[in-house]
Parts: sequence; C-alpha cells; structure tokens
Amino acid sequence: MKALISLLTDFGVKDSFVAEMKAVIFSICPDANVIDITHEVERFNIRMGAFLLASAVPYFPAGTIHVAVVDPGVGGERRPVLVETARSLYVGPDNGLLIPAASRESIRHVYELTNRSLMREIVSSTFHGRDIFAPVAAHLASGTPPAEVGEEITDYVRAHSPESTFDRRGIQCEVLHVDNFGNIIINITEQQVKKLSSTRKHNVIFHRKRIPVRLVRTYADLRGKEFGLLLGSHGFLEIACREASAASRLRVRSGDVLRVDGA
Amino acid sequence: MKALISLLTDFGVKDSFVAEMKAVIFSICPDANVIDITHEVERFNIRMGAFLLASAVPYFPAGTIHVAVVDPGVGGERRPVLVETARSLYVGPDNGLLIPAASRESIRHVYELTNRSLMREIVSSTFHGRDIFAPVAAHLASGTPPAEVGEEITDYVRAHSPESTFDRRGIQCEVLHVDNFGNIIINITEQQVKKLSSTRKHNVIFHRKRIPVRLVRTYADLRGKEFGLLLGSHGFLEIACREASAASRLRVRSGDVLRVDGA
Amino acid sequence: MKALISLLTDFGVKDSFVAEMKAVIFSICPDANVIDITHEVERFNIRMGAFLLASAVPYFPAGTIHVAVVDPGVGGERRPVLVETARSLYVGPDNGLLIPAASRESIRHVYELTNRSLMREIVSSTFHGRDIFAPVAAHLASGTPPAEVGEEITDYVRAHSPESTFDRRGIQCEVLHVDNFGNIIINITEQQVKKLSSTRKHNVIFHRKRIPVRLVRTYADLRGKEFGLLLGSHGFLEIACREASAASRLRVRSGDVLRVDGA
Repeated sequence: MKALISLLTDFGVKDSFVAEMKAVIFSICPDANVIDITHEVERFNIRMGAFLLASAVPYFPAGTIHVAVVDPGVGGERRPVLVETARSLYVGPDNGLLIPAASRESIRHVYELTNRSLMREIVSSTFHGRDIFAPVAAHLASGTPPAEVGEEITDYVRAHSPESTFDRRGIQCEVLHVDNFGNIIINITEQQVKKLSSTRKHNVIFHRKRIPVRLVRTYADLRGKEFGLLLGSHGFLEIACREASAASRLRVRSGDVLRVDGA
Repeated sequence: MKALISLLTDFGVKDSFVAEMKAVIFSICPDANVIDITHEVERFNIRMGAFLLASAVPYFPAGTIHVAVVDPGVGGERRPVLVETARSLYVGPDNGLLIPAASRESIRHVYELTNRSLMREIVSSTFHGRDIFAPVAAHLASGTPPAEVGEEITDYVRAHSPESTFDRRGIQCEVLHVDNFGNIIINITEQQVKKLSSTRKHNVIFHRKRIPVRLVRTYADLRGKEFGLLLGSHGFLEIACREASAASRLRVRSGDVLRVDGA
Repeated sequence: MKALISLLTDFGVKDSFVAEMKAVIFSICPDANVIDITHEVERFNIRMGAFLLASAVPYFPAGTIHVAVVDPGVGGERRPVLVETARSLYVGPDNGLLIPAASRESIRHVYELTNRSLMREIVSSTFHGRDIFAPVAAHLASGTPPAEVGEEITDYVRAHSPESTFDRRGIQCEVLHVDNFGNIIINITEQQVKKLSSTRKHNVIFHRKRIPVRLVRTYADLRGKEFGLLLGSHGFLEIACREASAASRLRVRSGDVLRVDGA
C-alpha cells in the first residue's frame, strides 16, 4: 500500500515552502500519498498546531507518517525528533507540537534525528522542514526502520495541556481553538459534557459578561441570535451560534479562560 | 483506473476539517485521487458553492465522484443525498447545492443516504462531511453501486437558478460570482451573448449609475480604465477591467441585480 | 514512474480555476502526480511568480513538468511556450515568468505552442491555463516529445533580474520577496554574502532610516527586537526578526530598493 504522509505547518500557502517539502518527499519516495492537514496555523503558535494535529490524526489510517512544523526555534538548541506510537509516526521539532496527538496513541519511542544520511546533503539553519523532516519522513515511507533515525531519548519536551476544573457552580475552562465558522472550542471533553445537566439552564461567563447558552445537539437547533453549547466534531464542547460567529460576538480568542455555570 | 473524487466546501483551510474528510476517504479507498475544487466558498453560501461546482464539473472525466458540503442545516431535518447523473455522482446535503451541476448532465436518480454501513460508526451531528459524505464517496469509489446507499427519492430540493430577462432596451441580469481578479460574472450565457449587438455601444446600469462598456474578446483588448464585456471561461458574460477589479470599482457583489442595455 | 507536474498561478483558491486545470490534466493523464507550488502569487505580478518558481524548482526531481500561469496578456499577442532545459520542462506564457527558473538549469529549446491537437478543442480567450497549458503539460506527461508542441523560437521574452551592486561602502540591493513570516529576501546571493565581513557591524539603509543589523545563522540567534541578516533557505540574504515581521516593522515591500552597509 502507498505510504501516507500528512503535513501540518505554519508556513501559509503564499510561499513555496510547502511545495519544496513535497518536492523533497517525492524525490525520495515517488509513490507517497501526501495530505495537507493545514498550513495556516498561526505563526509560531505551537499550541494551535498541536490542537489541530491531535484533531485530525484519529481519522488517518494506522501507519500514517505525520510531519508537523511550527518551529520558532529552528536552527537553535531544539532537537529534531521522531515519535513512534502504537499507531503512527510523527516527525518534527522537539517543542511539544507532536505530543498531544502522539500521547493519545501511546508513545513507544522518541528518537532524536541524528542520522545525516537521511537528511538533505546541505541542511540550512532556517528550514528543517525541507532539509530534515521531509526527507526523514520520505525515507520512513520508503521502509527505513524508525530506530535508524538516531538515538532514543526520554527527556523530550512534554506539551502543556490545560485542564478544565470543576467546582460547585460549574466549570472553569480554556478556549482551545476558534474554527473557521467562529465556533469556540473549549477544553471540556465528551466525558465531562455528561456532567452538565441537560435540563438546567447554563451561562457562559467571560469578562464579567454572563451569556445564557442552551445545550443543543447541532447548529440547526439554535434560533435567531441565541448562543448554544454542543458537542462538536473534535470531541470537545463548543460555544456556537446559528450561521454566525460566536467568537466575534463574544470577542473570544484562542487561549482565553472562561466559565460555564449552571444558571 | 483510479477513482477521482472532488471536494468542495465552505470549511476553509485553517482547520483540520478537509484533512479529516481526506483521511476518512483514504482509510476506505487508499487508491482514490482526491482533488480540491475549493474550500473557500463563503460560509453557508449555497448559491456560490453551487455556481463553483457547476463551473468545475464539466472539465472532470466521466465517472468522477463529487463531494460538496455547504451545509447550514447539518444534523437537522435536511437529508443527505446521492445524485446520479449520466456522467457523474454527487454526494452532499439535499439543499440545492448539487443540483445546478447535476442537472446539466441529466439527473437519473436521487437517493437519500440511509445505509449506515457505508458511514462512520459514530455519526456526529455537526460534521456529516467527515462522517457521512466522505465515507459514502469512498465506498462508491471502491465499487459500491449507487443504488445501495439508500432509498430513491423524487422530492429533493431544486435549486433556484436566476434567469436573466430580455426586454426592448436590454437585459436584466444578476451577478452569479465575483472571481479572484474582480471580474463580475453575470447570468448571460454564451447563447444569449449572441443577441447582443457587437457594433452598438452598451452600458451597464447599476444603482442609477450608467457605465459604458465595450464588447471585447479578452482582458488584454481593454485600454486604461475602460470597462469591458466579454465571454468568460465559465461560459457566462463577464464585466471586466484590465489588470484591475471591476467589482471593486463598481462596488458590485454576488447576488446584485443590474442591467446591460444598448446605448 | 509517475510523471510529476507542478502548478504555480495567481488564481487564488477561492475560484474553481485551479481545479479546472487539474481536471483537464487527469482527463488526459490519470496517473500524473500534481503538486501545487502556490496559487497566491499577487495578481499579475510576474516577478513574484518567477521568484517563487525559481525558488521551488531545484527541489523537484529531474523530469518534472512545471506549469506556471501569471498571465495579464492572456488571449492577446503574447505567445504560449514550452521551455526545455537540461533537467525540466516549463509550460506557460512567454512573458518572462519561466525564465529565471529555467535559465539556472540551462535552456535547450523554447517552442511556441501551436499544435492544436494538444490543446482543448475550444480554446477560450481568457483561460489558457485550462485550455492550452494544462492539456499540453498532460500530453508531455503522457509521453508526447517536446518538439511536437510547435516551432522552436529564439526571440522569447527574457526576464529582468535585478542585480545587486557593490561599492566601497556596501551593497545596493532590491527586495525580491517578503515571505509569510515577514522575512525580507534581498538579491544578495550565497556567494556575495561571503564578501560581507562577519566581524563588522552592518546597517540596512532604507528611506533615510539606518537600522543596525547583526549577521546571524538563524532566527533563534536573534534577541528581543533586534534585526538580523542571515542566509535564508532560498539561497539569498534575508533581513529578519525573531518571531516578528521584519517587513512590517521596516514597511518594506517586494521591489523596494535598499542598502546594506558596513557600519
């Protein structure tokens, strides 16, 4: 079967960066199937990249090689790594970007990429995506065993994953992501959603504003300018409006802290 | 031959939505060839999506499976459907999005998607693109016959296609689309263009402004800040400027009504 | 091996233009592997397109067919051409767009595209990307020899490539490109960089402002709001900041002229 390689970066699509990575991959492994997750991660926003990678990964088949590059420390002290899980391989910088996705699949080994024969002959100090990560991924796709990329390490950078906290009145939580439609994804999981009463009224509290929200199943259940709370496709609770941006109306951004309380 | 699947959505490319659809497709049909038509349809703008789908479809080979998702009613009452034409298959919501493209190819059958074995095991109420449309398309690409997706229906949602109207002085028409270059595509077809005199001068009337336009063959025939009328690559008349945005200069948007008159 | 075709245009991804080109390619050559370089070249900016094409091309395998369309003169006097080099084929308009990339690989032949049997049956006057360039590229990918596309020509349009000039105090140069991160890429090559003293302090002079810059190896070497000069991944000198846009801070745009002087 053709090897599947996914790409996630903060490079945008205006420049030739992403194409250079693909060109390197196809030069080494002409049969690879390369899928873009996104290249519109906010510049240097490792957390947003980690969230989107972790969101997409469960839908890929086992054996996929994920290459992710949000890499403010390129060329500096941070190490390039391969993370091997029970299900996938992850190639990218050792800055926490790969960990939320990988740890859900149970991490088996983390290797520092040191085997120069798997990289481009000249490695620039500013574009490891093209010169290290893409060629290593292509060699893995062509059958190179993971253990050949370099030495195993255990002191890799763990990710900060904010936890929501429950108290008597409700939940304190954090905005993980605002999607293209303005839906506000917060760190309350499917399991935690079950603790919310479906009969009581809820409020979202943000910046001293108290906004009534209704627990619904989908966007189309909402009426007019009403705010809703629903279990979104990422497996997290979302604050949403019908055909409008909840994030614009509430002026909420990724990383903001808010509360969801019973009324 | 490898099955060809096209994708058109209003999901944007900042999120992982499109990648999740592709990951689901390749999990079921690893050999599919997936082409993006666009993911930048304006949010919830079914008409713009329908126009772009109908524009692109004629250039795809027979047998292509088109998946289109502009779907404000996701998870509500609207049905998921498969439209089978003499030439292609269309998978998406029953809200008119698929019909302009499909009806040009002569619709043979419309099926409501009810066969759960062709969908993802858990179907979210907010992302049928990933949980219903992508897997159904992938199963069709792998050889599942169209009739197995569900029951045939005849009461599917027809599209509203605005007609231009001719009178003694000219044509009343509507803006179908404003393209990336600011060209204004109006609902006057190649056949109707022939009714316009090529020797007389024409005017576009919009918001009581009267703008002289010249019938030309291509953008490079225009001089300076002149406005032109030409038959565009979509098969419709366009109002255009040379290396400038006609839409910005006239402040015209998709859906606006205007007139093209003989001078 | 599967033929590799790259695409670079100023079409954006909001419209169906790019998909129409791909649909035409796959109709003729179903096995082609099509890679997007970028479709976000500024409208009609031939120089930016030429720079990005020349940046990406060296990373593609030999035998790649590059299709590039930034084409304000479409349908007018400008000729459609195929440029054959020692390493690649280039298909696009005869307006200089292809030449910087091709001339680095040593140009062997330039042909005017005149063989109608390799184009779409109806050639629109506004979209040669779909009707001429894509089908010609697909036929080349399927094995049609280059010499069959039309007559060889020698009077093709050469590109203007601005040269940086050295004087006693430093270098006068030009901004080739501003990338997604706001790095300012200037026309000082790897060879020329070696003439800059690594011990002396340097200044960038732009609009009578004099900005101290430090020669560094990578972005992470920079501190706080400091400006740096480094050899970027395109093989040219870049003016950069750490996790910030140098172009926004200096208000520099592509095409601007500036100086790099010893302090």
